[in-house]
Amino acid sequence: MTDANSNDLMSLCKRRGFIWPSFELYGGVAGMYDYGPLGCALRNNIVEMWRAIYKGREGFVEIDSETVNPREVLAASGHVENFADLITYCQSCNAPYRADHMVKGFYDNPDVLTPKQLEEAFAKHGIKCPACGGDLGPVGEFNLMFRTNIGPGSARIGYLRPETAQGIFVNYPNLYRYNREKLPLGVIQTGRSYRNEIAPRQGMIRMREFNQMEVELFVDPEDKDWARFSEIENGTLDLIPNTTLQPVTMTVREAVEKGVIANRVLAYFVYTTKQLLTGLGIDPSRLRFREHEKDEMAHYAADCWDAEALLSYGWTEIVGIADRGSWDLSRHAQFSGADLTHLKRFDEPKEMEVEKVAAKHKALGPAFKSRAKDIVAAMEKLSPSDVKDGKLKVSVDGEEIVLGEEYFEIVRRTEKVAGIRVIPHVIEPSHGLDRIFYSILEHAFCQNEDGYTVLKLVPAVAPIKVGVFPLMEKDGLDVMAKEIYEKVHTHRVEAYYDGSGTIGKRYARMDEVGTPWCITVDYDSLRDGTVTIRDRDSTEQKRIRAQDAAAVVDSLLAGRPFAEL
Amino acid sequence: MTDANSNDLMSLCKRRGFIWPSFELYGGVAGMYDYGPLGCALRNNIVEMWRAIYKGREGFVEIDSETVNPREVLAASGHVENFADLITYCQSCNAPYRADHMVKGFYDNPDVLTPKQLEEAFAKHGIKCPACGGDLGPVGEFNLMFRTNIGPGSARIGYLRPETAQGIFVNYPNLYRYNREKLPLGVIQTGRSYRNEIAPRQGMIRMREFNQMEVELFVDPEDKDWARFSEIENGTLDLIPNTTLQPVTMTVREAVEKGVIANRVLAYFVYTTKQLLTGLGIDPSRLRFREHEKDEMAHYAADCWDAEALLSYGWTEIVGIADRGSWDLSRHAQFSGADLTHLKRFDEPKEMEVEKVAAKHKALGPAFKSRAKDIVAAMEKLSPSDVKDGKLKVSVDGEEIVLGEEYFEIVRRTEKVAGIRVIPHVIEPSHGLDRIFYSILEHAFCQNEDGYTVLKLVPAVAPIKVGVFPLMEKDGLDVMAKEIYEKVHTHRVEAYYDGSGTIGKRYARMDEVGTPWCITVDYDSLRDGTVTIRDRDSTEQKRIRAQDAAAVVDSLLAGRPFAEL
Repeated sequence: MTDANSNDLMSLCKRRGFIWPSFELYGGVAGMYDYGPLGCALRNNIVEMWRAIYKGREGFVEIDSETVNPREVLAASGHVENFADLITYCQSCNAPYRADHMVKGFYDNPDVLTPKQLEEAFAKHGIKCPACGGDLGPVGEFNLMFRTNIGPGSARIGYLRPETAQGIFVNYPNLYRYNREKLPLGVIQTGRSYRNEIAPRQGMIRMREFNQMEVELFVDPEDKDWARFSEIENGTLDLIPNTTLQPVTMTVREAVEKGVIANRVLAYFVYTTKQLLTGLGIDPSRLRFREHEKDEMAHYAADCWDAEALLSYGWTEIVGIADRGSWDLSRHAQFSGADLTHLKRFDEPKEMEVEKVAAKHKALGPAFKSRAKDIVAAMEKLSPSDVKDGKLKVSVDGEEIVLGEEYFEIVRRTEKVAGIRVIPHVIEPSHGLDRIFYSILEHAFCQNEDGYTVLKLVPAVAPIKVGVFPLMEKDGLDVMAKEIYEKVHTHRVEAYYDGSGTIGKRYARMDEVGTPWCITVDYDSLRDGTVTIRDRDSTEQKRIRAQDAAAVVDSLLAGRPFAEL
Repeated sequence: MTDANSNDLMSLCKRRGFIWPSFELYGGVAGMYDYGPLGCALRNNIVEMWRAIYKGREGFVEIDSETVNPREVLAASGHVENFADLITYCQSCNAPYRADHMVKGFYDNPDVLTPKQLEEAFAKHGIKCPACGGDLGPVGEFNLMFRTNIGPGSARIGYLRPETAQGIFVNYPNLYRYNREKLPLGVIQTGRSYRNEIAPRQGMIRMREFNQMEVELFVDPEDKDWARFSEIENGTLDLIPNTTLQPVTMTVREAVEKGVIANRVLAYFVYTTKQLLTGLGIDPSRLRFREHEKDEMAHYAADCWDAEALLSYGWTEIVGIADRGSWDLSRHAQFSGADLTHLKRFDEPKEMEVEKVAAKHKALGPAFKSRAKDIVAAMEKLSPSDVKDGKLKVSVDGEEIVLGEEYFEIVRRTEKVAGIRVIPHVIEPSHGLDRIFYSILEHAFCQNEDGYTVLKLVPAVAPIKVGVFPLMEKDGLDVMAKEIYEKVHTHRVEAYYDGSGTIGKRYARMDEVGTPWCITVDYDSLRDGTVTIRDRDSTEQKRIRAQDAAAVVDSLLAGRPFAEL
């Protein structure tokens, strides 16, 4: 798609009610868009297809957590410390800029430069403020989280969540209990996340408020297989591994066997992502999976792949699929002190040698008298790792008691053990919903030399499924068309009644917003009860019985080819 | 429901994964809850039923707008000035309190007291800090919006939206164009809104982050009828009018004819609200519609009714249905300077006498030479109301020119006029999604003396539609049960496979979360291919063919009575 096409697409989106720049009445806010009627319907359809795969096929559970998060959560996740861009202000007009964006063209990878290197680059290349030509000031960090206060005063700092994932991680104990303490445990969440961009451009690709569909799959660190793997192992993937940086096409099985993708469960969800995206209408020839380069990958990640769509902006990440290891749960366990493990049960309890805290009854009795019994019980719940500087703390009846080594010893015993505790690993397919939405539109956008536009959306995502027209709005044609509209239209199968303008103009209006079929009531309809149904992509028309209209549309939506009507 | 029941319900909600207090790992945040797997599914089902009525039956359009709003929007809406509670801090421990909550019990209506009256009440009644007994300090206003900054620096103040409605109002020009400049124009939006409560209590009734389903219907101020009114006019409503403050039951038609409800379109949506709520499982005998009292109603509202559910908290507002007049669009027109009117076309253009700006060509020509023509064109687009202090401003080629009365005059002419411009009125059914969710649970909650709990959820909202069990997890019973599960389970018809514990225990687990039906595979199933299906409310069981399981569940969901299987 050329830039000109991309402008035509954005103008179509605004004109026809897919997306609108937010708050235009008040001059707008950069990086914010509202979903209009057609966009909201299309977006909801994308979410439903994602749910069909993850809730339906895979049986994962969905949760919905809060968007305002207290500081503690995002300190543990690392966002308070690390979720920042480098910023510089013009010394004359005070305009803020992303420092790395200022040196684009001079460096291949400007986002690896340090603040000092960026300042030097400004000087070396004579880079000035694009707005006023003033000098660019010192480079500092700007945290990209929207900050607020929870409750009165500034005592409790909160941030708008930078990702939906954290809401799943902090609910791990609840989710693990819900799943009856079994792995794998698959959890999905869709909703808004926030990134307070310094100076957003690039339309829907970089939004300050954006929508995610995240999947967090908790697995046994020693079992990275997936039961359904064999169903998809012969499917092919277009990959760019970080070893060669060259495109290569191979089957999912090959990718795992050759060590290109780290393990079977990750490979399964890379392929699932391809199934979802192509099912939504992303052009397979404009879709690839690029492995994060070694200096790009998070240090804790076992492997990480981006689904990239070819857009007018170039290859653009629209989904990330990562094996994040035990990082997320380890961090929250460390910061919260909670137990975020999985008890991996042995088939049979095993005899194992274990270290235990043992009470020295002879010392405790005289020292603590009647409370000794409760203290012993409390001590025996602790483990050797609870001993700090040779002392153990126990809490009895709300009172904290510190016990020296005269009261306990560490003993080794052979015990029957039910299992071992492991911190689950996380496989994370993380979807940028707005970017998927936009990619679908770019890949569906077709315009001929005369400017005639067809959005070739797959029927499942099309916001309007069927247009219903009377040939003329008179002679009872309109009455019959409205009756058909009432029968076909539901909140899941949206129909659109249109009685004004020439039929050609009405078809064009529906083609332009991707409506797959149009039904027209003409004078024959009044005589024989049939109507025409027109197919968007072939522009072919057939006659069907008006009374079958809803059933025909349902069957087309279920995948029946138009040619077989 | 007693308080004890209410505690049992909340404990069930947490234990079984309906709702979880947010951020428990980090000590929690008051007034915030996450939706667990069952809660999220139930909530999504509520939203779908709301969509089925408003998008499906009524043909309204849905949009989705941003949650971070720039200050200008909320200044126009009045929230910057008025969305506040009165606050007092303990002078000793600094704990914040809602000032009116401190004097409850001493006054019938503490929320009408002024700051001064509240301070006097503290002194008069010796009211102290409930936490430490310290003196309560001066009473001030606390704005309940979460505040943040958009972009770097503090130049652009933003707030988390206090309601989803504003996102619809500020998109009026886009929506009006989408609707091809016709009224009525019905728009819905669901999503999060925010209220930074001083000290939230009351569980899900008062949340800092809450979910709304709002409907804004723009109508011609002179046409407050609704085409489908006759379909529901004989339906009955339990009303508490503000004239008598006494409960009265009457038909929708009577309510309008007697002037109890202000007009037919408002009455239609009061009844629609009853249809929705009872369809969701709200007990009709614990539902009433209370008219706002005269001192409670907003000054601009023509009429306003609250749908109230009887909960353990007492009668609680769960939906508000208001005729807001032209208030919202007038305010945004005034603050933004935009034209937010509707052109009410006459059937035929009418001859009307109108005032116009007329250029004085003879003066303009010599003064402006070649630019005179453009200035005339620009002047004639203006109206007499654009004249300020006897001067007109026009903009020609980006230059602003101020013209005195020597260059124009106001003339009266007879012209053909296509229609008149009116500011649409807004009918607003505004749903508190979390409150509806909670009310459904309270009204569904049944517990006998032994503590056996059944959630009698209507099937459409039940998060799990069917439990699937093997009698024992062996002998191939489990294989057959899993096959049935795979066939029945989709993301819209959720099934739950359970193979552990006695069958009685498994039924109890499903009863407790409101699953309407359970299918069990037993030894007869292996022989004859039939399975039992059990009805939650009657506990009756029938045998059906295993291969029909999915179709039977679909038919039950579509309303077929269990007794007729």
